[in-house]
Amino acid sequence: MFEVKISQMGLVIPTVPAPIAAYVPAVKVGEFVFTSGQLPMVDGKLLAQGIVGDLAGDIDVETAKKCAAQSGINALAAVKSVIGTLDNVVRIVKVTGFIACRSDFTNHSAIMNGASELFQEIFGDAGVHARSSVGMSALPLGAPTEVELVVQVRA
Amino acid sequence: MFEVKISQMGLVIPTVPAPIAAYVPAVKVGEFVFTSGQLPMVDGKLLAQGIVGDLAGDIDVETAKKCAAQSGINALAAVKSVIGTLDNVVRIVKVTGFIACRSDFTNHSAIMNGASELFQEIFGDAGVHARSSVGMSALPLGAPTEVELVVQVRA
Amino acid sequence: MFEVKISQMGLVIPTVPAPIAAYVPAVKVGEFVFTSGQLPMVDGKLLAQGIVGDLAGDIDVETAKKCAAQSGINALAAVKSVIGTLDNVVRIVKVTGFIACRSDFTNHSAIMNGASELFQEIFGDAGVHARSSVGMSALPLGAPTEVELVVQVRA
Repeated sequence: MFEVKISQMGLVIPTVPAPIAAYVPAVKVGEFVFTSGQLPMVDGKLLAQGIVGDLAGDIDVETAKKCAAQSGINALAAVKSVIGTLDNVVRIVKVTGFIACRSDFTNHSAIMNGASELFQEIFGDAGVHARSSVGMSALPLGAPTEVELVVQVRA
Repeated sequence: MFEVKISQMGLVIPTVPAPIAAYVPAVKVGEFVFTSGQLPMVDGKLLAQGIVGDLAGDIDVETAKKCAAQSGINALAAVKSVIGTLDNVVRIVKVTGFIACRSDFTNHSAIMNGASELFQEIFGDAGVHARSSVGMSALPLGAPTEVELVVQVRA
Repeated sequence: MFEVKISQMGLVIPTVPAPIAAYVPAVKVGEFVFTSGQLPMVDGKLLAQGIVGDLAGDIDVETAKKCAAQSGINALAAVKSVIGTLDNVVRIVKVTGFIACRSDFTNHSAIMNGASELFQEIFGDAGVHARSSVGMSALPLGAPTEVELVVQVRA
């Protein structure tokens, strides 16, 4: 059902990169999956690089919202890597959205809606989640967004 | 019991705003409740706005401590929205306190005690929690604090 | 088994400080342990103090990597405080690494490998975890790193 919806939306959930050292995309314990923080990578490259703000060269909210959505897609890829098919998702429980931003930035919510709206479109009621959106000094590789999930799955 | 204590303390746990889009105040899975990050809102307005630090216009530790307590009250409101009464709390398990601050700020602990002391006063032994306190570049709407909870509840 | 490995590695897991107010090193709920965020303290003092970056007086990646490992050791001490022996660890589920850094810093991953490699060496397959690494404006006491864990343990 969810996999069909993803296809109908024209989305492709990528395969996640092979584990690096002691660190994997997601871990399943009972009915919970905890993902690693996911950057807005597409084919091994960041969708955008930098910090959200108003200075020259800064990233704008629209671009960062697309990055949040891509981080969300990659987080689903991480979930899929440990449960086989996203049809086994019971509930997107918690979404934490880390946004690299200037100290006067206030519109984190608009950015993270990129991920939240995606989850709702794919999963319907099962995609309605708790969420924290917070502003960081910088993220790995200069990514503007990083998204991690706690997901309830069929045990 | 906890609801009586809250009344005796003269506290009011507000009702949380209606869900916005794909994002709700809290999600319950089995015996766990995960809340969204809660800002120090009172009647739809922030208790204070800005960053904790020593620059002109910055927020001081005492004001930020009150904001952390208010974020904590709102986090309890989020929990209550999915379990009906806070008497169903078994344990405050984990408190994460995000504090918007300058890069030379060091006193995060004093601020987050505003939330921790509140939970202990309300819940006694059931309010003794694990905690992370961390400093952010900026939080949504310019809030100085954001608090999220993991809570064990009657299943 | 894990305790023997820790001894063979020449590591000492310290005892954690006594609870301060409403806040403890870790909480166990069923098969999960949630730890508090742990700073790189050794005998009550930070291994290093400051922010990771390229400015004069900033901390370099190698030093911060050692701090991440020390934060990881202290996180294991927090786990041990609620399960008696680390032989009762079933799986290191999630590692969140908070790194105080400048806004142009990008190498969070190298720093957090200090903790990840430690967990893998001690716990083998049981130490392979999901991880988020993020950059903060500042951490408590001026610490460069703070590490928190979600761990699966024998119930």
